[in-house]
Amino acid sequence: MYRDRLTRRAFVNLVGRAGGVGAAYGTLTAMGLLAVPEAYAGRPDLARHGGGRGVKVAVIGAGVSGMVAALELSAAQYDVRVFEAQERVGGRIRTYRGGDTVVENGSVQRVDWDRDPGLYFNAGPARFPHHHEALLGYCRDFDVPLQVFVNDNRAAYLHDAAAFGGRPQRARRVITDTRGAVAELAARALKQDLDRPMSEEDLARVRDFIQGFGGLDGNYRYTGSPDAGYSEPPGGPEPGQVLEPLDLVEISKGSSLRWRALFSEQYPQQSTVVEPTGGMDAVARAFYQRTRRFITLNAQVTKLRRAGSGAQVTWRDRVTGRVQVWDADHVIVTVPLTVVNAIDSDFSPPVKRAVEAAVPYYIPAVKIAFQADRWWEKDHQIYGGISWSSRDITQMWYPSSNLHAREGILVGAYIWTHDIGNSFSAMTPAQRAAAAVADGEHLHPGYRNLVRRPVSVAWPNVPFQGGAWIDWGDDLATRRDIYSVLLPPDGPYWFAGERMSHINGWQEGSIRAAHNVLHGIQARVTHG
Amino acid sequence: MYRDRLTRRAFVNLVGRAGGVGAAYGTLTAMGLLAVPEAYAGRPDLARHGGGRGVKVAVIGAGVSGMVAALELSAAQYDVRVFEAQERVGGRIRTYRGGDTVVENGSVQRVDWDRDPGLYFNAGPARFPHHHEALLGYCRDFDVPLQVFVNDNRAAYLHDAAAFGGRPQRARRVITDTRGAVAELAARALKQDLDRPMSEEDLARVRDFIQGFGGLDGNYRYTGSPDAGYSEPPGGPEPGQVLEPLDLVEISKGSSLRWRALFSEQYPQQSTVVEPTGGMDAVARAFYQRTRRFITLNAQVTKLRRAGSGAQVTWRDRVTGRVQVWDADHVIVTVPLTVVNAIDSDFSPPVKRAVEAAVPYYIPAVKIAFQADRWWEKDHQIYGGISWSSRDITQMWYPSSNLHAREGILVGAYIWTHDIGNSFSAMTPAQRAAAAVADGEHLHPGYRNLVRRPVSVAWPNVPFQGGAWIDWGDDLATRRDIYSVLLPPDGPYWFAGERMSHINGWQEGSIRAAHNVLHGIQARVTHG
Repeated sequence: MYRDRLTRRAFVNLVGRAGGVGAAYGTLTAMGLLAVPEAYAGRPDLARHGGGRGVKVAVIGAGVSGMVAALELSAAQYDVRVFEAQERVGGRIRTYRGGDTVVENGSVQRVDWDRDPGLYFNAGPARFPHHHEALLGYCRDFDVPLQVFVNDNRAAYLHDAAAFGGRPQRARRVITDTRGAVAELAARALKQDLDRPMSEEDLARVRDFIQGFGGLDGNYRYTGSPDAGYSEPPGGPEPGQVLEPLDLVEISKGSSLRWRALFSEQYPQQSTVVEPTGGMDAVARAFYQRTRRFITLNAQVTKLRRAGSGAQVTWRDRVTGRVQVWDADHVIVTVPLTVVNAIDSDFSPPVKRAVEAAVPYYIPAVKIAFQADRWWEKDHQIYGGISWSSRDITQMWYPSSNLHAREGILVGAYIWTHDIGNSFSAMTPAQRAAAAVADGEHLHPGYRNLVRRPVSVAWPNVPFQGGAWIDWGDDLATRRDIYSVLLPPDGPYWFAGERMSHINGWQEGSIRAAHNVLHGIQARVTHG
Repeated sequence: MYRDRLTRRAFVNLVGRAGGVGAAYGTLTAMGLLAVPEAYAGRPDLARHGGGRGVKVAVIGAGVSGMVAALELSAAQYDVRVFEAQERVGGRIRTYRGGDTVVENGSVQRVDWDRDPGLYFNAGPARFPHHHEALLGYCRDFDVPLQVFVNDNRAAYLHDAAAFGGRPQRARRVITDTRGAVAELAARALKQDLDRPMSEEDLARVRDFIQGFGGLDGNYRYTGSPDAGYSEPPGGPEPGQVLEPLDLVEISKGSSLRWRALFSEQYPQQSTVVEPTGGMDAVARAFYQRTRRFITLNAQVTKLRRAGSGAQVTWRDRVTGRVQVWDADHVIVTVPLTVVNAIDSDFSPPVKRAVEAAVPYYIPAVKIAFQADRWWEKDHQIYGGISWSSRDITQMWYPSSNLHAREGILVGAYIWTHDIGNSFSAMTPAQRAAAAVADGEHLHPGYRNLVRRPVSVAWPNVPFQGGAWIDWGDDLATRRDIYSVLLPPDGPYWFAGERMSHINGWQEGSIRAAHNVLHGIQARVTHG
């Protein structure tokens, strides 16, 4: 029982450094490890083959993608400069606390919450799953403290106006009774002829399995399960009384219930999900600490022009108004495609068209937060997690940390559909808050008296953001077409950010996209 | 949006105080709140009707049940004394850290782990769910810091020697592919005649619902889902390749896989589950801080004799050997039934028989922990949660907190079946560790080099415990018979502890059982 000297990961990294990602994959396969792959080869080693040797790289935008580029390029002797139009870094990472100001085009809100480390609001990214290895790797390297984020809470409520007369149901009940009813149907199908061959022995075993899966009785009927909860909970002398099962027909009337009940079954939402302790901006701070000398704040890039094999970057200091230029060999564009058009560029026509085609896919997300007593813990035994509503607010997030503190920040609305998002973005912050409070009543009667001091962020209105993230929905062909244009370099121009990854809408995508561009630049520098 | 002045809970408590639990329930029903009940009326208010007025209560055992009794009785002017045979309080709450000593009948282990607040091992209770309101209430009242405990981790492994050639599978894959296959069968059943009436419209809706539930294709076939994971994960330019679905017939061969895949679907294991930050003994410390003046340590009760309407308690100081007596009006027995027989008592014959009948239901639980580098995070993206094996170790627990710390305490075995528990209890600690290491290899190849410094606790061997907790299994009729004898007082004798509740094996049960006895004593004192 000695400490091992070379973990699998270390070995794979070693191979990855020596021979690239392909070699690492080959090694994994040879090791028989690809039964459980999900391998991420680690941070790019750009110093190989002599590194950047002073090659000049301009990075537009100091979000996660831009700071990753700055970090890795600078470590490999590239001459990197990051131009950030705002007076802050982190892009969509925005953690608000008492005393902060929320500036949107058209409104300014002062956050008047109590000053307490536990009272924070991640208006942008707020969580990430265990398989976002690149982000997790940086958090590990940077000692960003992480804690468990509750994504799946069976005590939270599912509310759909079309089912159960609009009465919210505990998630545990919908989930358990759905499983039971579906299993009962499946057991019935097993009685019939199956069109695939199954031995008698297999059939009996599968049936037994399904019986257990659904909590069916001896006749393969679902008659309810303690997993759904109790009408009278067990206690000292009381054995408890299990709830009557919900009818699948009634459940299915809430078209959204299916999706909501399965939310944390999705790959990106599956446990374990984590968050940085005290706010997501810990990630931005950690990157900034290591890259600040390469970053110029308030530096708005206004013009991009090809020059030789490189490009000239023109930028304006938003404080002094002074305009300057920098000649770079490569330019990495990490700012949202919604604001790329504000730059006077000579991108090729196909690239310009692809950018334009992508813009409508940006989600006009809106989040609304309140300070509140932690009544959800005391009155509902809800510790973290998400309730869902078919009303506009869509989701309500209860804080996962500082459990049993007196107060907490409740996210009373998390909207990420085009119609509702646009409608809320057109409202004043006060109107949004009022609408969210009214909707919240449907989940928690008395809600209007339970929350206070609203703060909202409508991402379409945030300067230099112009939206939240790209969601291609089912338009994967569109994504493929757009990526086929934007993933390869357009001369000296490279596009990064989550929108250039297959992990859209997550910081992990931003990092992976940046790594991809960095590998591309490295290949150019090494092989000409 | 003002702070509300009287929460539902506060109101229910108020009613509860005025009229008892029954009134509180009635009020809840009248308020229409029993749609989502799970109401716990709060800590008993024993001071009503004048309180204890010096009535003498002896409590045997300073576990959670005993300390709850001491706390609530002393607050209501009862004259309470707790006799604890050990030199410590907390009963089965045992949190081990570097420098501690584990004493069993027959062995002594020195815990040689590094001294670090993150390196702790809860050998007894280690978590509790969000609906354990009594325990949560005390934690709130006592400011015991809580954090989220990862019970459900889809990245953890399920291993069953009888399925997949013994190759461990990620939980996400087994769970997702089971759901898909069962949904496919259910959709097929819907094509057949159903024996309950369902309109065409309902049928179409339910079918659509099941399609979504299982991730079925347009033909209601399950052909795999990203929720099961990827053979090639998505990244920057890579769209990813979803894993082939596992065959339900093969899954069903692992008879334990069903249970394991559904583990966190069970009511007591459902999210949100929490643990005290830094170790479960924070609960014991919090109670002890408030009850220490009523507790005598090293005080082994050797004899109980009825005297008048009360009883005489004879106890021996285990340090000085001095024997003393205390005359009490009531005696609350909270020590495990496995050790009750060591007391020379005049319990009634039915009570003695019931105690004897209950003893075989005590689980001979064993836990084995190791210090280790956190290779499970780096190499497997496992952040907390539980892997399962059909080998003897049964479970492997990864720590939920101090994520990304360099080292962690890995629970390499959590055994809670009679045969394996007894077999491991008969081994030396070194033998147990070796067996656990060999089993661990089946979950994590190379395991023997990945863990070190084993510490184990076999609960049958722990002095004054003699087992872990009672699990009645399917013998609910036995429980009913035994409870019918042990729940009512036997003259001055009252039995508490989790074994006297319907929440067996949990601290919540201990508290509820104690509350039940306290209400009984209060009724006696008030109404004679």
